[in-house]
Amino acid sequence: MLAGGTYPAMMALGLLKPAPAHAFNLTGSGNGKHIIILGGGLAGLSSAYELNKLGYKTTILEARERAGGRCWSVRNGSTNTETGMPTTTAKFDEGLYFNAGPSRIPHHHELTLHYCKELGVPIQVYNNVNEGSYYFAEGKGPLSNKKIRAREVHNDMRGYMAELLSKSIDHGALDSSLSKEDTQKVLEYLAAEGGLDIDKLYKASARRGYSESPGAGNKPGKISEANKLADIIQSGLLDPDFYNVAEYTYELQMTMFQAVGGMDMIAKALQKQVAPSLKLGAEVTNITNLAEGVKVTYKDATGEHVLQGDLCICTLPLPVLSNINNNFSGDVSRAIDYIGYIQTGKIGLQFKRRFWEEDDHIYGGITHTNNELTQIFYPSYDYLSKKGILIGYYNFNEKAQRTGELNYAEREKLALEKGRLIHPQYDKDFERSFSVSWHKTKYNLGGWALYSSETRKTQYPALLKPDKHVYFAGEHLTYLNAWMAGAFESARSVVAQIHARVTEQRVSYPATKQ
Amino acid sequence: MLAGGTYPAMMALGLLKPAPAHAFNLTGSGNGKHIIILGGGLAGLSSAYELNKLGYKTTILEARERAGGRCWSVRNGSTNTETGMPTTTAKFDEGLYFNAGPSRIPHHHELTLHYCKELGVPIQVYNNVNEGSYYFAEGKGPLSNKKIRAREVHNDMRGYMAELLSKSIDHGALDSSLSKEDTQKVLEYLAAEGGLDIDKLYKASARRGYSESPGAGNKPGKISEANKLADIIQSGLLDPDFYNVAEYTYELQMTMFQAVGGMDMIAKALQKQVAPSLKLGAEVTNITNLAEGVKVTYKDATGEHVLQGDLCICTLPLPVLSNINNNFSGDVSRAIDYIGYIQTGKIGLQFKRRFWEEDDHIYGGITHTNNELTQIFYPSYDYLSKKGILIGYYNFNEKAQRTGELNYAEREKLALEKGRLIHPQYDKDFERSFSVSWHKTKYNLGGWALYSSETRKTQYPALLKPDKHVYFAGEHLTYLNAWMAGAFESARSVVAQIHARVTEQRVSYPATKQ
Repeated sequence: MLAGGTYPAMMALGLLKPAPAHAFNLTGSGNGKHIIILGGGLAGLSSAYELNKLGYKTTILEARERAGGRCWSVRNGSTNTETGMPTTTAKFDEGLYFNAGPSRIPHHHELTLHYCKELGVPIQVYNNVNEGSYYFAEGKGPLSNKKIRAREVHNDMRGYMAELLSKSIDHGALDSSLSKEDTQKVLEYLAAEGGLDIDKLYKASARRGYSESPGAGNKPGKISEANKLADIIQSGLLDPDFYNVAEYTYELQMTMFQAVGGMDMIAKALQKQVAPSLKLGAEVTNITNLAEGVKVTYKDATGEHVLQGDLCICTLPLPVLSNINNNFSGDVSRAIDYIGYIQTGKIGLQFKRRFWEEDDHIYGGITHTNNELTQIFYPSYDYLSKKGILIGYYNFNEKAQRTGELNYAEREKLALEKGRLIHPQYDKDFERSFSVSWHKTKYNLGGWALYSSETRKTQYPALLKPDKHVYFAGEHLTYLNAWMAGAFESARSVVAQIHARVTEQRVSYPATKQ
Repeated sequence: MLAGGTYPAMMALGLLKPAPAHAFNLTGSGNGKHIIILGGGLAGLSSAYELNKLGYKTTILEARERAGGRCWSVRNGSTNTETGMPTTTAKFDEGLYFNAGPSRIPHHHELTLHYCKELGVPIQVYNNVNEGSYYFAEGKGPLSNKKIRAREVHNDMRGYMAELLSKSIDHGALDSSLSKEDTQKVLEYLAAEGGLDIDKLYKASARRGYSESPGAGNKPGKISEANKLADIIQSGLLDPDFYNVAEYTYELQMTMFQAVGGMDMIAKALQKQVAPSLKLGAEVTNITNLAEGVKVTYKDATGEHVLQGDLCICTLPLPVLSNINNNFSGDVSRAIDYIGYIQTGKIGLQFKRRFWEEDDHIYGGITHTNNELTQIFYPSYDYLSKKGILIGYYNFNEKAQRTGELNYAEREKLALEKGRLIHPQYDKDFERSFSVSWHKTKYNLGGWALYSSETRKTQYPALLKPDKHVYFAGEHLTYLNAWMAGAFESARSVVAQIHARVTEQRVSYPATKQ
């Protein structure tokens, strides 16, 4: 059933080039049905982009004067409004930016990379793993306030654990089903994995770095001394706060990417595609399911307006949606109210010199702390250049709550005071800051949906089906919470559902392959 | 003592901008002394670059019609000559290249990054760590000929080892000086490190990847099943061949870099600086120490020439130098003959489609094999673009020896036959190849100096001091063998020694800081 509609028809006639690997394989036309999309973030923009291809009429209502939502790179002139605070404007040098929202693309997030490719957004490696970055335990234990390189913790721990297990195997203490031969292989593996010496002892190896670098002539280099296991433990470097199991998680494993020039280049590229559909500065105030279709009220600079459509896709973050009048069913309203969002914030700090590269030899990656900062992100772009913006803290939950309660000047003070413990160069090289507390930011009111196993079971399902003519989409309606891929996957899922309803086709939504 | 010489004088007068962090801090002038430099690789080029700054006259004799030596990116039109084979020419698409020589810059190789910065060579991340790349055990054990993602091996092994050690600790088998409290911390660490379940058992975690990806709506994803420890062992995935302890080594830890557009952009930038000093196509045939100065005979397209200089820096690879007439002292000649070089080779394979990205979601990084290929390198540039060049093998020692004995067509056949076991897309998407066997390549005759503890003790020292008027420089005269940083560090060391001798100053050669 091929019902008019320019894009699929042209495809069928061979007038368009074949669709790329992850393009939609939907056929049939939306025949000009009007879909009102609430929210111009990635879910809203990509919904409109795909619906427009299928012959729908779309209107995106976006409250802010910019699209992209959380997919936002802060540059000179960027503004933000937080609850109870004046609107603030970033004053950075031209060409510098930091990603206030998503800053990383996992290599297996196919849809995100698909849209980068389809829309011609160049990507570059986001250097999430850097063995040269620091662990910094403020005021705790024997390694308190020392800058310990990630490579030192990683290799010391591999060494000590391999040594302990080797000993235990040698003492015949291993309760295992392995053959004698396989056990011997495990011992060899442990010696290699841990960098053990011939006596199966860990005594530091070059992997943890040198106190004197190897060089030309008579310079074999001097391997630095291992930290004691007890010291590592007592300084809390194995605590969840700290020990970077994060690097092991599926989503944070290398290879990771970012869009060249700022992550919002992805949003901007989508925005360009759907420009005629997009109303900026349009704040939704009421969503009403009608017997036929849906009515949305919004206000903009010129006053209040009413828009009527056949169907609606609501991508608004739930804490925002919770405050908008609607006639949703009870279980939908409950879900909107009950599903939690994370508290999180970042601060961008502009420095007049890339001291982290020049002095510390840290190029990208993350320093971890046990204090309010939680993390310092070093920029993965413009290496070796003059200036740069660090993300001075990127924290969550209670720490983000406390930081968010500070005003902009106090946050900057906090970031500088704690940061200079690690990088005393802050004193001389700092220029300007810009901070974002997402749970306090108007039109967001949270970082991303944070499900408990309870809310995932009791509340989540209510939002997976349409409430009459209103569909819900966004990262919060996926198992890819916090990720841009969640927005895209959810948008596609909802577009497929809408298209099936409109065309009365049974279409299959192509699952991404592993 | 400031003796004329334009560069230092201008520095002193404040006419030049202050030297960057790792610029030489030498003062005094070479006063036009003539230094003959043998070999236009990185050691030779950077020696001339620094000497010219100090007011020396330099002549670089380079046998090839290009400078850079092993710092060489193969592009369309690149040629190479190997022993007993016709000169071969690369036929790649414009814009595509592979680094036949060095392809990685460790973040702590300060001098390499210093020259990139000083000469304006842009760098980008070389993605040496990729959890999505494969381990491939051809014809061995239960996992034979299966593509196992690095993340699967890494996380399965972390899990199994953490489980074994936890058990052993629980059984009180741990012979350790740790307190009860610290032991408890180790147990918690192991549970996190290994991704153990509540019973301290490893049963696979999301870290090893999904058999069904998590997505929108009702798609929580399905975690893939762990491989059995015995299977991993019996397929040899823990063998030295394989298990990627390489990623742990100091030199291969992320962050790593490459020069944008090909590593030889570094050589080209240096070449531009020393162009008036550089004689290409000039093959050295004799090096003679005179009572005063040094005499070098070379031949070029126009015939044989004799050049006389005050001092000489010989950067020629030792296997090449070994065949050049000279009047060196006995211990120097012996060292030249005895120090070993590695056998190594690479093949670049151009494909018309980046199937490794599109189908396998592999972006950069390295697949490891137990067969002749040893490694497949995926390109760390032009992600998401159309075509690309893989390094189809990068092997060493016996494997490189055997591969090197093949002719170009046979090497291509080998790379395709073995490679298609991992990537069947080779069949459809392959276009062209170009292979280099370094130990067979004229003017190299080896990959890099490979010292035994014996040769390091008995032969190495002889080349660290000048033989009358001839100094030796190159990666082979450092503890940074195989690395570009070795060439630079060695060049600086020798330039400093020469300058001290010429100016009779005692200058200190600035050690790189850790």
